[in-house]
Amino acid sequence: MSGVSLQDLARFCGGRVERGADLVVTEIRPLDAVTPGCLCPLLRNQALLESHALPLAVLCPPDLLGVAQAAGIPGIFVHPEPALALALAVTVLYPEPLRPEGIHSSAVVHPSAVIGERVYVGPGAVIEEGAHIGPDTWIGPHVYLGPGTRLGARVRVGPGAVIGFEGFGYAPSPDGPVRLRHVGTVEIADDVDIGANTCVDRATLGVTRIGPGSKLDNLIQVGHNATIGARALLAAQVGLAGSTRVGDEAMLGGQAGVADHVRIGERVKVAAKSGVTRSVADDAEVAGYPAWPRRRWQRAMAFLSRIGRGEKQDADT
Amino acid sequence: MSGVSLQDLARFCGGRVERGADLVVTEIRPLDAVTPGCLCPLLRNQALLESHALPLAVLCPPDLLGVAQAAGIPGIFVHPEPALALALAVTVLYPEPLRPEGIHSSAVVHPSAVIGERVYVGPGAVIEEGAHIGPDTWIGPHVYLGPGTRLGARVRVGPGAVIGFEGFGYAPSPDGPVRLRHVGTVEIADDVDIGANTCVDRATLGVTRIGPGSKLDNLIQVGHNATIGARALLAAQVGLAGSTRVGDEAMLGGQAGVADHVRIGERVKVAAKSGVTRSVADDAEVAGYPAWPRRRWQRAMAFLSRIGRGEKQDADT
Amino acid sequence: MSGVSLQDLARFCGGRVERGADLVVTEIRPLDAVTPGCLCPLLRNQALLESHALPLAVLCPPDLLGVAQAAGIPGIFVHPEPALALALAVTVLYPEPLRPEGIHSSAVVHPSAVIGERVYVGPGAVIEEGAHIGPDTWIGPHVYLGPGTRLGARVRVGPGAVIGFEGFGYAPSPDGPVRLRHVGTVEIADDVDIGANTCVDRATLGVTRIGPGSKLDNLIQVGHNATIGARALLAAQVGLAGSTRVGDEAMLGGQAGVADHVRIGERVKVAAKSGVTRSVADDAEVAGYPAWPRRRWQRAMAFLSRIGRGEKQDADT
Repeated sequence: MSGVSLQDLARFCGGRVERGADLVVTEIRPLDAVTPGCLCPLLRNQALLESHALPLAVLCPPDLLGVAQAAGIPGIFVHPEPALALALAVTVLYPEPLRPEGIHSSAVVHPSAVIGERVYVGPGAVIEEGAHIGPDTWIGPHVYLGPGTRLGARVRVGPGAVIGFEGFGYAPSPDGPVRLRHVGTVEIADDVDIGANTCVDRATLGVTRIGPGSKLDNLIQVGHNATIGARALLAAQVGLAGSTRVGDEAMLGGQAGVADHVRIGERVKVAAKSGVTRSVADDAEVAGYPAWPRRRWQRAMAFLSRIGRGEKQDADT
Repeated sequence: MSGVSLQDLARFCGGRVERGADLVVTEIRPLDAVTPGCLCPLLRNQALLESHALPLAVLCPPDLLGVAQAAGIPGIFVHPEPALALALAVTVLYPEPLRPEGIHSSAVVHPSAVIGERVYVGPGAVIEEGAHIGPDTWIGPHVYLGPGTRLGARVRVGPGAVIGFEGFGYAPSPDGPVRLRHVGTVEIADDVDIGANTCVDRATLGVTRIGPGSKLDNLIQVGHNATIGARALLAAQVGLAGSTRVGDEAMLGGQAGVADHVRIGERVKVAAKSGVTRSVADDAEVAGYPAWPRRRWQRAMAFLSRIGRGEKQDADT
Repeated sequence: MSGVSLQDLARFCGGRVERGADLVVTEIRPLDAVTPGCLCPLLRNQALLESHALPLAVLCPPDLLGVAQAAGIPGIFVHPEPALALALAVTVLYPEPLRPEGIHSSAVVHPSAVIGERVYVGPGAVIEEGAHIGPDTWIGPHVYLGPGTRLGARVRVGPGAVIGFEGFGYAPSPDGPVRLRHVGTVEIADDVDIGANTCVDRATLGVTRIGPGSKLDNLIQVGHNATIGARALLAAQVGLAGSTRVGDEAMLGGQAGVADHVRIGERVKVAAKSGVTRSVADDAEVAGYPAWPRRRWQRAMAFLSRIGRGEKQDADT
């Protein structure tokens, strides 16, 4: 396997080589599975101490330089944003396998669908009438794209994702719920990632929308008429009810849920498993169910914890 | 595009035209995306005030008639159940695209399966031995129907749903969990909707059952031997453990969970994200984890919120 | 239908026949759906009392023997582990239908993949480059196995499961999140079950690992670099964030979530819907969000419940 010198890596990724600029690394490995010739990300102090073998080189932030030096690592590559440097280094050391550009013979693509250049459509994927797919977009196996769905450029849709199927809208009637036919669509902007088995419902009327650069993990539910801004991050199993709005750069932890018509402001952080029932202002952090400002929730939980430990006198007893 | 006069709409949907009976509407649009000739549902006061352009006509409940008149909307169609009227109006203005009745050539249907009239089976769907599918039922792409599964008439199964696969049943043994082979089935009554990527496990023995007119959203788990009554509504990501019973017309909010063997009574409302650990009587409303009567949960949360805000004296300090 | 005598069943399953050793049972049925000639599991007292017809025979634990005798059941088969006996009895009375060993013609298997003996690969399944599948393993329809994924012997992967797709890893950058290419893999040991539509992400670097005999239910998310030990049980809709570690024989209830880098010890029990934010020592039981020792959580909830009922004086009022 050919490798790359630390110096060449730093030229591509930024940062600086503190030691061993000419050392050639051939792999990137985690600290608990070191191999000869490997570069390891060193993002936390304790991880290194637990490891049994020293790697040839580490990639670390400036504040861990001393740790790396003390441990006697031969090569030390320091970067102010080591996670970003790692993403770049991986692309250097592991040139992407040939991507099977093109539409798999088992995919079912409606003749009216418009497919951009260098698009991949995986086995069994179903693309309905009037769908548009931008250039360099990757549609995994078994994906469903409903009628009229529009995807931008460089979008990635994981296996089994369902984009643009009918939403959960029913009108009450004396004979039981009557299904509301959904005549809206879904629009997904450039550079969006959609995880495996995630569902994005099409709008009742109008558009369900995901803004540029947003990333959705696996098994997420995005209800009809929801709107997600740019560069938002939604972790696995998040659920957005109908007509929610999520602002630019908001971050939602795993299994968090948002009630219908609620607005999550820009740069808001929603803790994992929270249930957001009211709109949240820009830049806030919320946690809990119902979701409160993080500080308030922490104080309430600290109180409850003392009750549970029996440390607090319970007035009745 | 041909359109429909408000008067003709009212003849089909019920309700009355308050103003502009001869106006012809050509589209139904949300208030934030008005086009010339469109009818907009006006279900809340504030929505109209936020909009920038006036629609040709609105569909509103009686208590918003004054708002619509004051805003100078040319056409006003008043209906006591505007959501139901909307469902009907959509079917008038958007005649359903030709549904591809028939079994897609890539579907894999066991020769012993019985398929009713006018059934659609989408690409890649797998229908196992002895399954029965009633007339006018719609089976989406990539759906799995296990052996012996029975679906009624007018059922809709969303893409990627898995109905009738083995449930999660294991017997403890000294060598680890031993899988309990599931020899039961699933029965789904008429007019049921099953969302995308939702899973309904077959019974260990006996039948997992979903009653007529019930509607299940996406990414729901229905455990083995669960029973859901008629006209129940389950929002996305709900989880029912094994042997739960959900009564007629019960409503479960998104991400709610129900523990095994628990019974949810008729017309019960379970708030989103609740965790129900004990049976709930008919007509009750519950919330929280563990789920309590809604009022009790609200009082407890109001107390905790004051603690969290520091408004309450904490007795120890 | 041919049947089996109680005596022969006991010879195969262990336990003893208390009454009616020569009786021949032809079916196993639940108590609410008795047929002539059936054996019913009797695991709880009340279930029998609610039933309207008596079965030919019951399978019960020793402490329910008196109940069965008093009810006048003709055949009584007593076993100290009736659930295990039931699992075995099902295999005797319901010899498995011919399993379609072999690779379905619509599956898409990369030529470099290594497939063991007696493996089943269902319709539409996609097996990527360099995957290894051990003998007697069952890959359901529409399953995705990513590049380099390794599955042991007797593994069962439910329909729609996605194993070894890219995880949710992004590095922050001024232009928004940059995707971290995942060059790790997934290794799944012998006798593991993976439920329908469950997702197991491949590691960023290194390996996402599931140990022998562990059982995962439907709609579960296992993040990149997570490690699950041996014989663990994860109920439906559980979410494990990246780099979590779950010990041998741990049990996680439905919809539980575990934060990244948290370690769940051996034999730990995590209550359904809990959110585990800190590591949990071996043999502990935790509940709630944030998850606490079960006893502490119960005390805190009992306190809150009294507040909610208005039984406790609220100091401010």
